[in-house]
Amino acid sequence: MNSSDLLELLESVRSGTLAPDDAVARLRAIPFAVSRDAMVDHHRHLRTGMPEAIYGPGKSPEQVAEIVSELLNNGSGCVVLTRATPEQTKAALAVNAEAEVLGGTLVWRAPVVRDDGPRIFVIGAGTADVPVVDECIHTLRAHGIATQRIVDVGVAGLHRLLVHVEDLQSADAIVVVAGMEGALASVIGGLSGAPVVAVPTSVGYGSGLDGVTALLAMMSSCASGVTVVGIDNGFGAAMSVVRMFRTSQ
Amino acid sequence: MNSSDLLELLESVRSGTLAPDDAVARLRAIPFAVSRDAMVDHHRHLRTGMPEAIYGPGKSPEQVAEIVSELLNNGSGCVVLTRATPEQTKAALAVNAEAEVLGGTLVWRAPVVRDDGPRIFVIGAGTADVPVVDECIHTLRAHGIATQRIVDVGVAGLHRLLVHVEDLQSADAIVVVAGMEGALASVIGGLSGAPVVAVPTSVGYGSGLDGVTALLAMMSSCASGVTVVGIDNGFGAAMSVVRMFRTSQ
Amino acid sequence: MNSSDLLELLESVRSGTLAPDDAVARLRAIPFAVSRDAMVDHHRHLRTGMPEAIYGPGKSPEQVAEIVSELLNNGSGCVVLTRATPEQTKAALAVNAEAEVLGGTLVWRAPVVRDDGPRIFVIGAGTADVPVVDECIHTLRAHGIATQRIVDVGVAGLHRLLVHVEDLQSADAIVVVAGMEGALASVIGGLSGAPVVAVPTSVGYGSGLDGVTALLAMMSSCASGVTVVGIDNGFGAAMSVVRMFRTSQ
Amino acid sequence: MNSSDLLELLESVRSGTLAPDDAVARLRAIPFAVSRDAMVDHHRHLRTGMPEAIYGPGKSPEQVAEIVSELLNNGSGCVVLTRATPEQTKAALAVNAEAEVLGGTLVWRAPVVRDDGPRIFVIGAGTADVPVVDECIHTLRAHGIATQRIVDVGVAGLHRLLVHVEDLQSADAIVVVAGMEGALASVIGGLSGAPVVAVPTSVGYGSGLDGVTALLAMMSSCASGVTVVGIDNGFGAAMSVVRMFRTSQ
Amino acid sequence: MNSSDLLELLESVRSGTLAPDDAVARLRAIPFAVSRDAMVDHHRHLRTGMPEAIYGPGKSPEQVAEIVSELLNNGSGCVVLTRATPEQTKAALAVNAEAEVLGGTLVWRAPVVRDDGPRIFVIGAGTADVPVVDECIHTLRAHGIATQRIVDVGVAGLHRLLVHVEDLQSADAIVVVAGMEGALASVIGGLSGAPVVAVPTSVGYGSGLDGVTALLAMMSSCASGVTVVGIDNGFGAAMSVVRMFRTSQ
Amino acid sequence: MNSSDLLELLESVRSGTLAPDDAVARLRAIPFAVSRDAMVDHHRHLRTGMPEAIYGPGKSPEQVAEIVSELLNNGSGCVVLTRATPEQTKAALAVNAEAEVLGGTLVWRAPVVRDDGPRIFVIGAGTADVPVVDECIHTLRAHGIATQRIVDVGVAGLHRLLVHVEDLQSADAIVVVAGMEGALASVIGGLSGAPVVAVPTSVGYGSGLDGVTALLAMMSSCASGVTVVGIDNGFGAAMSVVRMFRTSQ
Amino acid sequence: MNSSDLLELLESVRSGTLAPDDAVARLRAIPFAVSRDAMVDHHRHLRTGMPEAIYGPGKSPEQVAEIVSELLNNGSGCVVLTRATPEQTKAALAVNAEAEVLGGTLVWRAPVVRDDGPRIFVIGAGTADVPVVDECIHTLRAHGIATQRIVDVGVAGLHRLLVHVEDLQSADAIVVVAGMEGALASVIGGLSGAPVVAVPTSVGYGSGLDGVTALLAMMSSCASGVTVVGIDNGFGAAMSVVRMFRTSQ
Amino acid sequence: MNSSDLLELLESVRSGTLAPDDAVARLRAIPFAVSRDAMVDHHRHLRTGMPEAIYGPGKSPEQVAEIVSELLNNGSGCVVLTRATPEQTKAALAVNAEAEVLGGTLVWRAPVVRDDGPRIFVIGAGTADVPVVDECIHTLRAHGIATQRIVDVGVAGLHRLLVHVEDLQSADAIVVVAGMEGALASVIGGLSGAPVVAVPTSVGYGSGLDGVTALLAMMSSCASGVTVVGIDNGFGAAMSVVRMFRTSQ
Repeated sequence: MNSSDLLELLESVRSGTLAPDDAVARLRAIPFAVSRDAMVDHHRHLRTGMPEAIYGPGKSPEQVAEIVSELLNNGSGCVVLTRATPEQTKAALAVNAEAEVLGGTLVWRAPVVRDDGPRIFVIGAGTADVPVVDECIHTLRAHGIATQRIVDVGVAGLHRLLVHVEDLQSADAIVVVAGMEGALASVIGGLSGAPVVAVPTSVGYGSGLDGVTALLAMMSSCASGVTVVGIDNGFGAAMSVVRMFRTSQ
Repeated sequence: MNSSDLLELLESVRSGTLAPDDAVARLRAIPFAVSRDAMVDHHRHLRTGMPEAIYGPGKSPEQVAEIVSELLNNGSGCVVLTRATPEQTKAALAVNAEAEVLGGTLVWRAPVVRDDGPRIFVIGAGTADVPVVDECIHTLRAHGIATQRIVDVGVAGLHRLLVHVEDLQSADAIVVVAGMEGALASVIGGLSGAPVVAVPTSVGYGSGLDGVTALLAMMSSCASGVTVVGIDNGFGAAMSVVRMFRTSQ
Repeated sequence: MNSSDLLELLESVRSGTLAPDDAVARLRAIPFAVSRDAMVDHHRHLRTGMPEAIYGPGKSPEQVAEIVSELLNNGSGCVVLTRATPEQTKAALAVNAEAEVLGGTLVWRAPVVRDDGPRIFVIGAGTADVPVVDECIHTLRAHGIATQRIVDVGVAGLHRLLVHVEDLQSADAIVVVAGMEGALASVIGGLSGAPVVAVPTSVGYGSGLDGVTALLAMMSSCASGVTVVGIDNGFGAAMSVVRMFRTSQ
Repeated sequence: MNSSDLLELLESVRSGTLAPDDAVARLRAIPFAVSRDAMVDHHRHLRTGMPEAIYGPGKSPEQVAEIVSELLNNGSGCVVLTRATPEQTKAALAVNAEAEVLGGTLVWRAPVVRDDGPRIFVIGAGTADVPVVDECIHTLRAHGIATQRIVDVGVAGLHRLLVHVEDLQSADAIVVVAGMEGALASVIGGLSGAPVVAVPTSVGYGSGLDGVTALLAMMSSCASGVTVVGIDNGFGAAMSVVRMFRTSQ
Repeated sequence: MNSSDLLELLESVRSGTLAPDDAVARLRAIPFAVSRDAMVDHHRHLRTGMPEAIYGPGKSPEQVAEIVSELLNNGSGCVVLTRATPEQTKAALAVNAEAEVLGGTLVWRAPVVRDDGPRIFVIGAGTADVPVVDECIHTLRAHGIATQRIVDVGVAGLHRLLVHVEDLQSADAIVVVAGMEGALASVIGGLSGAPVVAVPTSVGYGSGLDGVTALLAMMSSCASGVTVVGIDNGFGAAMSVVRMFRTSQ
Repeated sequence: MNSSDLLELLESVRSGTLAPDDAVARLRAIPFAVSRDAMVDHHRHLRTGMPEAIYGPGKSPEQVAEIVSELLNNGSGCVVLTRATPEQTKAALAVNAEAEVLGGTLVWRAPVVRDDGPRIFVIGAGTADVPVVDECIHTLRAHGIATQRIVDVGVAGLHRLLVHVEDLQSADAIVVVAGMEGALASVIGGLSGAPVVAVPTSVGYGSGLDGVTALLAMMSSCASGVTVVGIDNGFGAAMSVVRMFRTSQ
Repeated sequence: MNSSDLLELLESVRSGTLAPDDAVARLRAIPFAVSRDAMVDHHRHLRTGMPEAIYGPGKSPEQVAEIVSELLNNGSGCVVLTRATPEQTKAALAVNAEAEVLGGTLVWRAPVVRDDGPRIFVIGAGTADVPVVDECIHTLRAHGIATQRIVDVGVAGLHRLLVHVEDLQSADAIVVVAGMEGALASVIGGLSGAPVVAVPTSVGYGSGLDGVTALLAMMSSCASGVTVVGIDNGFGAAMSVVRMFRTSQ
Repeated sequence: MNSSDLLELLESVRSGTLAPDDAVARLRAIPFAVSRDAMVDHHRHLRTGMPEAIYGPGKSPEQVAEIVSELLNNGSGCVVLTRATPEQTKAALAVNAEAEVLGGTLVWRAPVVRDDGPRIFVIGAGTADVPVVDECIHTLRAHGIATQRIVDVGVAGLHRLLVHVEDLQSADAIVVVAGMEGALASVIGGLSGAPVVAVPTSVGYGSGLDGVTALLAMMSSCASGVTVVGIDNGFGAAMSVVRMFRTSQ
């Protein structure tokens, strides 16, 4: 149910073709379909302006398939499945094969990506951060937002980053993906006045503590106004950018 | 040195009244004035579109006064001093008494707050979160951004929050300040599609671990796209909002 | 040995058919049977009003089988085996196949589940919390307690939860199972005055720290009177409910 | 507004003396009074069956006084203030001196404590745990629940505990307050089938880690069904008992 | 080289058959044989009264075999290999098959176990603690010390422990092996005045934090004079008992 | 009540001058006297062979005085008060001034220290560890055990330690007190075969984490058989030595 | 591009054969070649005097091969690949088989190791630390620096270390590799005035916390001037030594 | 006792004027003077080439005075006292007033600082890091090493750092002092090939975790070969530089 569906329903009430009580019942009934292990949320787009995303980990392939099916069959718009295992991917495509598959991210009914949208950069400190960078990029694309991708510009080789300074200063938002000590977020936060969302990654070993070191470092950034999402959460960083640039609020 | 100063200088180069080498020397010389313990950054506004902020803790009153003086005497725009102790406040006002004093936040040459700016909400879970809420609000005001303030709407009394749902859904950005388990960020993130910046506070005791519990909980929020700043960092949350709505980069 | 067995023994003492010393010896001898690696406790039901539960992890299939056998062969009532691996399940069923098998929970001599018992809700925040939800439900059923099951009502989609508010307010006890930031426990604790037992789960990744984040958040809940059990401990939450509603204290 | 107030209002609607819209407006308006830094919740008793409690830490004496005044002047029942500092106590008593003052706990309009209520034990492991024991007892008393108090029965002197075994087995609920390694909760959980709520305290030093050791130990208790509240949270433990024995939901 | 070897050498010096310089050279040369990755210590028994123990983890089967060979071929007494993998066991037995193999512990030239030695108890809280209990028992046996073994007497079933009270009070030393919350160490420390060495185990899950919870709890024991060794370190606990009862100090 | 008191009582039973029921009642009554906040344990010496120790922290001066009085007035032997504040010391001496005062340790009715007892060394790594060293020494003296004291022999100046090697090898037990990285315990554990009890101290700063670093390091000692007590717990280390050398069990 | 290349380019500018703008363009273009997921840094040697090192973990074999190829084909000097998996090793050798393979370290165009260079010791506490010791040695060799290797000299057998004291006092730098409690770094730091770089390893179990215990202990070393690198980071320790003895600064 | 004293003694042995046994006795006797709570180490300079440093914290003013006196009266060279409180400073100057007092660092018999020594930079990220920067500089000066001081060049204002790049590339060693996220160490490590010693500081709040965040971040630096000392340990960083440039080993 999207905004125009809702207006139509309310108009029926106004015009007398639908009794208020019936309208209430229908509204109350619609928001989600209940399967055994999931309540599928059809109102989410209406409420937050964001398509429904299914987070793969911890769900069985059958559960994933059931949720995908429920969402696609009930008039929803774009549907995104993230961090899908090969088994989940297979089960989901068996429901509906018309998805774009980008690594572990699947997108059905992807919107058109606008050329004239905001200038968003997704920057990865090292080669090993690439999967998180790409999860972020694919999620943004599923929301119709184009990105520019820069990788392997860690602060130990600062000159690699400095050639991009003008780009960074003209950005509308920047996602910084970095593991180890996560210093890249502070450096970029100091170079640009754009919103900077930092994603700590579990890249690194030993004293990196599976991403906790980068998380703490980014939270303590000396560059003011840098914000942080969870470890390896490229999806979450993308969604924070979606919140900034959603078209209808 | 602001943008028009810079243009003037470059024009002098183009017109031949200033030799390029001299221009380089002047540009290189200007960015910061060096006192014994601080390098005062006059280019910051030019580079990031944000006024200079002086973070009080760890600086002696003399160091604070010296930096304030340096910034005010060199043509800078708005100057902000945060988390000032009474001694720092006194020393800073002795330099220039024309500051607005809002709790521990001092603002010189504050810009006019626009009535038609973005709709920003700053929401505090409990009464004890108020100082962090206010640090955020005062910092935003120093950047010309008006806010709406809601406090004491923690999730244990959800109905207090629910009367604000429409407001939250029409917001342009929301800062959520909460200690203890920090659940308010997740609830608001689910209710609104606006950008949500969460500030964990050290409010609470025992298992709150001085804010670490709230920090971890907010980073793990099940509401996608919520971002987080450091513990008690109302200033940082404000600056992340400034980044989103800065007018000129 | 149950209460009537004990009364019979004491009556024999009173009537003189059993010498006190012999009674002491028999009481001392009975409580547990000793196998090589386990002392099987036959007095537990008598002492605490709860059936014996065998916790699977860390025991070899042979050890599990030996304990199940000892308990079933000595007149005990209901016997519960939890978190059994397939190998342990097989070994236990070889001893006595008359068990209900519910996921990794096995129940022998399950009591009748009363229709008129307390109204207990077991609520899971997400689809990935389902195994812990079900461990809790199966354990309660093994103790004769019926439950109502609600899943996928995390706080990011609060409206899914709000349709259940009346149910929650009429509950006799509520078990809340949630990973990530565990905010659901606080929200439900604020909506209902019933006893709320929170189970943090290791669902989530990165900053969820394998359930430690949810554990800390639930311990710091702003909803007063919420209590917490260990990470993923659906069995423990069930037992805390059993303690509340045991028939003979 | 209590249940009979509500019924009266609804009856007015039914009888036509109050228009439905007006009823909605009144219901919506009533729940809380808004002061600058707190929303006072008048519906809480109606919703959860529990009186309003004001948690002292982090509030100024003025804020405390304002909230106490708001609650007492609006027909509410019992009002509880916990962990009050001497300054807060003084400010609150200036509003209304008719409070019982029990350590840092203040109670206005305390209900009559029933003689025939449930048998509740509050047990402290050591002499240094006494303040938390008493916070729990006073809070329960403010809710009309009598308790029995046992202190200094730590597991290092087990025989001191064992003389109470019969009492513990006949209890309706037991609160166990212990610092250091918190072993008392496990021992009591094994001796009694009653609900056991464990409160870790920050008593101890060094490896006690300000209560985190006891918290973790209690969460990992080998006695099944023991639940835990936050460090030093005698108030929370009391409220969990109130939830179990509340008379009207 | 044992004590009598040393006396013989010194006697040769005294009698003039060995020059002092040569004696020094021989003494300096003897202490250890150097292989590529290990320095084998032949003086250890002489210095500390304890046989050489080889800790398996992290060594390749070849390295283990080389060290075993070096020790056995140079006149050493008893040799112990602990935590051996099947591959290490195989490689070590290929060097010399005359070992007693007790789980992952191998002992060559084990001393006679004295019947009249100290009364040592090794007590395990649960069935899952058995491997650590047995590592301790086997290590003590390799040093000629007999033990009495009690398992599955966790504090949740205190009566199982209480039948052993007299034994515990007559003990010369007690090793307590427990995971989860480790409360057994405190209880036994309160019941007996004998030396109590506590071994935290990684048994348990979630909030047990792989043994850290038990470790912290045991370090914070309210029973005075309980000492602790590392997580799962049954070998270390055994060695601490060996230190107490070594025959020649 | 000591052993001879107990024998006398049992003899009265045997001879018929005391009815068994009366004997039971008296035995049950004697073990502890109950004051408001403490149960004073008169059986402790009988049960564990150790005098009663009162741990000061967290007790009010009045509580301390009451417990001291109770213990001294009921025929007990030696009484020890540890970590007493000046206020507690004053209150305790007001009850009975016949105490030896050694820093924060007070001893009443101290036993004669035997000249021919075991050779015990208490070794402190640095000058700042001295208070913990002395707490250990005073506690041992209160139990009739003499010690030898060596301080400022940290591993950074190894030669200072090496002059004591012969002493250490002839010791009957060694307590090692060290903060920072706690390496002294490992070095001494390698040099001597005697029992080694390690006490981590909170000496040091920053990365010493208030003693947690030393605690973890000592638990992980590569010298086998070293045992550890809690941070700064000189009293506990002393009690572990008392357990080793108690004369009557 | 090395120093002479750069001088040649600048000379062309001076002599007029290269326009300044063209020089700038060439300099700007040269520093790195861009592949999809990595920016290969050709200026690194010029900037820091150190050859390029490729860190294996987290990179696909294809990415590794691409980077190796890029570096070797562009005139670079020595190239080092560390922590290569067998798959990465295979892929890299397929690009250019002329590498020395030392465990997981591959070196192309290794420099001649100088006989008259500094005296560097790499010392491992135990046999299980050998892989980290060897990573360090191989990395130093790839930079033309010879080392002396000593292993299995942990502090529990101090005499094994003491035979090396003269060597250590004449060293130019010492790398100490140790797990468990890491005490070896402190002992060596006290014996020698040379630079000491400590590498904590994840060797050990339980309370070693995967190397965190050793890391904290080494950071807290009582031997002044000891520095520390990350857990298991033999490569990093080698690079810190390279920094000390690089020939052209 | 310095090197020439030692040679003289050995020459006496060679020439027969001193018996070897007497020489041994004298050598053994000399190394340290024993006061009650400290062993003063007169051999330290001989052994490590570094003067004796007295670490103030945890020592009483009397202990400090005693150690200073002992060192100055026994022919030692330079003596350094660090982190002295005003009371310790006063007590130490009462012993000998001829000290240079630099903040909390006192130096007696400071060596001449060489003009032609190595080029050492000590760099502080922020104004609040200045006390640690100065502790490092004063300690180096006490060892005759001059430094260059740069402060307030944190990575959020990268251009302030970049004007120093040539200096950093020509440095012989660099100490980087930074709190918060400690990113400055990585940036400088990437810009210069000189040895970089990083000092995490406890500057910052909340998520800085009193320096633990910076410590972990620096240990995980993506710039290879950066080494780290303990939190706020400016003295330790200085000593690591002293080790690199000590003239006589």
